[in-house]
Amino acid sequence: MTSAPHDARRTARGASALREAFVTGKLVRTAGAHDGLSARLAQEAGFDAVWASGLEISAAHGLPDVSLLGLAEYVAAALIIRRSVDIPVVADCDTGFGGNLNAAYTMTRYEEAGAAGICIEDKLFPKRNSFVNSGQKLLETDEFCRKLEVAKRAQAHLDTVLVARTEAFICGMGLQEALTRCHRYVDAGADAVLVHSKDSTCKQIVSFMRSWGRRAPVVIVPTTYTAFSMDEAREAGVSMIIYANQGMRTAIAAMRRAWATVLAEGSTESLEMQIASIDDLFAISGMHEWLERAGE
Amino acid sequence: MTSAPHDARRTARGASALREAFVTGKLVRTAGAHDGLSARLAQEAGFDAVWASGLEISAAHGLPDVSLLGLAEYVAAALIIRRSVDIPVVADCDTGFGGNLNAAYTMTRYEEAGAAGICIEDKLFPKRNSFVNSGQKLLETDEFCRKLEVAKRAQAHLDTVLVARTEAFICGMGLQEALTRCHRYVDAGADAVLVHSKDSTCKQIVSFMRSWGRRAPVVIVPTTYTAFSMDEAREAGVSMIIYANQGMRTAIAAMRRAWATVLAEGSTESLEMQIASIDDLFAISGMHEWLERAGE
Amino acid sequence: MTSAPHDARRTARGASALREAFVTGKLVRTAGAHDGLSARLAQEAGFDAVWASGLEISAAHGLPDVSLLGLAEYVAAALIIRRSVDIPVVADCDTGFGGNLNAAYTMTRYEEAGAAGICIEDKLFPKRNSFVNSGQKLLETDEFCRKLEVAKRAQAHLDTVLVARTEAFICGMGLQEALTRCHRYVDAGADAVLVHSKDSTCKQIVSFMRSWGRRAPVVIVPTTYTAFSMDEAREAGVSMIIYANQGMRTAIAAMRRAWATVLAEGSTESLEMQIASIDDLFAISGMHEWLERAGE
Amino acid sequence: MTSAPHDARRTARGASALREAFVTGKLVRTAGAHDGLSARLAQEAGFDAVWASGLEISAAHGLPDVSLLGLAEYVAAALIIRRSVDIPVVADCDTGFGGNLNAAYTMTRYEEAGAAGICIEDKLFPKRNSFVNSGQKLLETDEFCRKLEVAKRAQAHLDTVLVARTEAFICGMGLQEALTRCHRYVDAGADAVLVHSKDSTCKQIVSFMRSWGRRAPVVIVPTTYTAFSMDEAREAGVSMIIYANQGMRTAIAAMRRAWATVLAEGSTESLEMQIASIDDLFAISGMHEWLERAGE
Repeated sequence: MTSAPHDARRTARGASALREAFVTGKLVRTAGAHDGLSARLAQEAGFDAVWASGLEISAAHGLPDVSLLGLAEYVAAALIIRRSVDIPVVADCDTGFGGNLNAAYTMTRYEEAGAAGICIEDKLFPKRNSFVNSGQKLLETDEFCRKLEVAKRAQAHLDTVLVARTEAFICGMGLQEALTRCHRYVDAGADAVLVHSKDSTCKQIVSFMRSWGRRAPVVIVPTTYTAFSMDEAREAGVSMIIYANQGMRTAIAAMRRAWATVLAEGSTESLEMQIASIDDLFAISGMHEWLERAGE
Repeated sequence: MTSAPHDARRTARGASALREAFVTGKLVRTAGAHDGLSARLAQEAGFDAVWASGLEISAAHGLPDVSLLGLAEYVAAALIIRRSVDIPVVADCDTGFGGNLNAAYTMTRYEEAGAAGICIEDKLFPKRNSFVNSGQKLLETDEFCRKLEVAKRAQAHLDTVLVARTEAFICGMGLQEALTRCHRYVDAGADAVLVHSKDSTCKQIVSFMRSWGRRAPVVIVPTTYTAFSMDEAREAGVSMIIYANQGMRTAIAAMRRAWATVLAEGSTESLEMQIASIDDLFAISGMHEWLERAGE
Repeated sequence: MTSAPHDARRTARGASALREAFVTGKLVRTAGAHDGLSARLAQEAGFDAVWASGLEISAAHGLPDVSLLGLAEYVAAALIIRRSVDIPVVADCDTGFGGNLNAAYTMTRYEEAGAAGICIEDKLFPKRNSFVNSGQKLLETDEFCRKLEVAKRAQAHLDTVLVARTEAFICGMGLQEALTRCHRYVDAGADAVLVHSKDSTCKQIVSFMRSWGRRAPVVIVPTTYTAFSMDEAREAGVSMIIYANQGMRTAIAAMRRAWATVLAEGSTESLEMQIASIDDLFAISGMHEWLERAGE
Repeated sequence: MTSAPHDARRTARGASALREAFVTGKLVRTAGAHDGLSARLAQEAGFDAVWASGLEISAAHGLPDVSLLGLAEYVAAALIIRRSVDIPVVADCDTGFGGNLNAAYTMTRYEEAGAAGICIEDKLFPKRNSFVNSGQKLLETDEFCRKLEVAKRAQAHLDTVLVARTEAFICGMGLQEALTRCHRYVDAGADAVLVHSKDSTCKQIVSFMRSWGRRAPVVIVPTTYTAFSMDEAREAGVSMIIYANQGMRTAIAAMRRAWATVLAEGSTESLEMQIASIDDLFAISGMHEWLERAGE
């Protein structure tokens, strides 16, 4: 087994920037993406990092986020994302795509793909999206710690960030379970914890932050508690905030309106003013740099 | 070489619907797409067909539309699109990805992927997007006819539609060249012709339609002559109208505005009202049907 | 969810040949393969079917057969195999790559890839190769039956063969457990059962066949009980015999000897007489048919 | 265009070992491979490098070596090969899969995949395998030099080796043309030249070496002039010798014999003694290291 090139001096792409932000207390503002274009739009807007979102990647395949896609499709999307931006890419890796060995393989493949960090959650495989109201089950804490350890040992680059995500709140458990699990996960080698919540308020997150004592960086995904601002997150001690799916949800709404207009009006004439031009599309796809390469 | 299952009675998925529309004079209203989600939005809006757009697929990979991607990535995207919709999928196959044998292989692989039709253009490989103002060169008519013949012979399903696309207008040639080429392409076996134009008016297209005499179905892509309506196209005798990239251009503009808002306001609160909900995203990704399969 | 084209009249490629053989009592002699070349060699030799072997596909990726690869890599290999031969392809699908929905998705994707049959086994995901002496655990019978039902309901072609594989003997259980499970699996919709054994004799298999009463076709994989002949299998009532990995094991031994010779002798001169010629390689790769397509 | 991470201090995997061998005059003994298993067998035998062979990769897909596969499939195979071994991987990149921009993209993608070197040949795209007796045409020298320059400028790692391959002898041209071209290619930035010959003797190669004067490392592929030994190559000043397809040709011959035996004898019993055992297959697939990772 010679797979992972092991060289302790090597560093993962963008990982050190992440780690530095964690140390200095800068909030890492992160946008979800599923392909090269959506990633580039996130970078262009000024986000600090990109989240290779499992929900978005699944939807881009026309599939729901219930573990139908595996490592191959997820890492392929993450690679396309990473190629398209200079900011760090943190990958949503669901449960690590199976058991402990899958988690180790996940680490190896994502490091190879240039991810700055990977995030593995403590639900049972196959998992369902956290906002589905059924079938949410947690793995035993010990077993998940073992998974984190095995993944961590497979790590080849010094600074790759392993984020352990707890779905304790999602599964209806309380603050104590979330805290206990996160402490255990850091003991097991996690470099950061993601505490997910589907509450409409920030209560669960804020209470967690108060008790956590900044032991390790905390990542949040305010999909439902939308009023919780970046400033509040920063004050609460959060290290990374992920807007995991709003980009795709924006695109859906806009495309729905646009196609309805085209079919109703019978042409794209009125649409033309409001949408990106062909030149814009060329620019964001790198057309000019590539033609320059050809000497033009 | 046992690759393509050859059975004259078999029909390509959706191809007969296309052919029927061509015969009855129904205008096939077609929207460009690059993944399962964008395809499903096109179907949901009421379009009759989906165009697996080379420009969009390239941009989704973070790459310009200059033949960097090959058959593998294009057909993979077309397959995901086809899986996601019930309406026919017509695939933008650039030049057929190389020479005559590549065109034959293209036909085989797209039929396998369930495409109702494929479109091959008469530019030199590697090609550049038609709206790039340099490097636009046509293949000799004879050579392109040979390419069409070889592709056609590789066809396994009776009704798959081979669209021959001429870039004569794009390359600065006149009506006569466009007409001559299109007649030759139909002689060589093309089932339809796509006449591309980057004019800001419909003059080139309308003059072509007048002289063409409805010998074979004509496909148009009114990216620049946006005022040309579906009704006008129908009257002019056009069989298929493709809005090839407006969906992605809509998404770009919308995501730009959305991400700017999030970074400016520090939260997604105001955005939330205007974008698709998580439940919408679930619905369009097929979540409910899949959970039903699981017995829920 | 519009993925699987559903048309009750359609039939899966090669599946009817399999079913006919099962009915007429012809033993389906099957060879394992992992790519287009190994599949074509199996067909050329005269085998009746090809087994897209998980062990071989994993090894071809440089990985052990412990569920590191997922559906994506397995089905990609099966597709390449199917494209390369005319005989039916039966795919080793491990546990169905996860839970019930994964099994349904597996059925859909393999039918799309043209498999005549798929085989799902009753071990826990992630599974280990049956010849590994640790970590062999069975799924509860009820749960596996449910998985078979969900997979079966996802079936789009009338005649696709769903093979339910029991690892009861592999997991140290006796004849009764194997029989009970197989009956339950057929009740749940399995079209055939694969009874695996790692015994050095055919005892387990023969005792199973005696008690089974030909209720449904039985598939065997005589990797360890090598003396058990095709004639004996036929007499015992076996429907399909799979030589799942001997091709790859042959190639390993031969390549080891060859490379050692080259490095020892300092040239390929003596090797040249014993190996396939370049023309042989061309022929088996379909060179002549493809050049003919080009008109040569 | 942010694709290629550009950092002058970074080095490509295994490239420095190649370059050192070139400087010290050590002959780099290289074996062709097409997947992880064949690569690992080459490393195990003691070869110094692996050649990701276009002919083998095509044949493994069941396709002839006539540019039907593109960069995607080739680089995927090279990546699997690279993951499977510690020795340097040099990739057969045909013509660079198209024009100048394709060559640049090829460089970027293969560096990302961890290739120590890539080899681009001076034939027209789409190319045919050098041993096909028709359709062998060279690109103009100036044009190929431009392609090399564009590829070279896309290089991100200091020490990646760009091998320029001339098919001058293959296309019936003489020593002078081969020499002129190779000098021009080195002027254009090539780090080594591959001089291909389909002669049954080493005359073309030896005459080339005499006139070349060791200006840059020379790579040879003695597929037809099999009597030419490693010692003779070393003496002649050759830097790298590639046995590009003998591994696969060995496997073909062996598998043919094996399957014929199985079908003739009705069992694998007599075969069993001569082939790799299941444990051997486990070992070479990395089973033991992976189970160890799991703590077993």
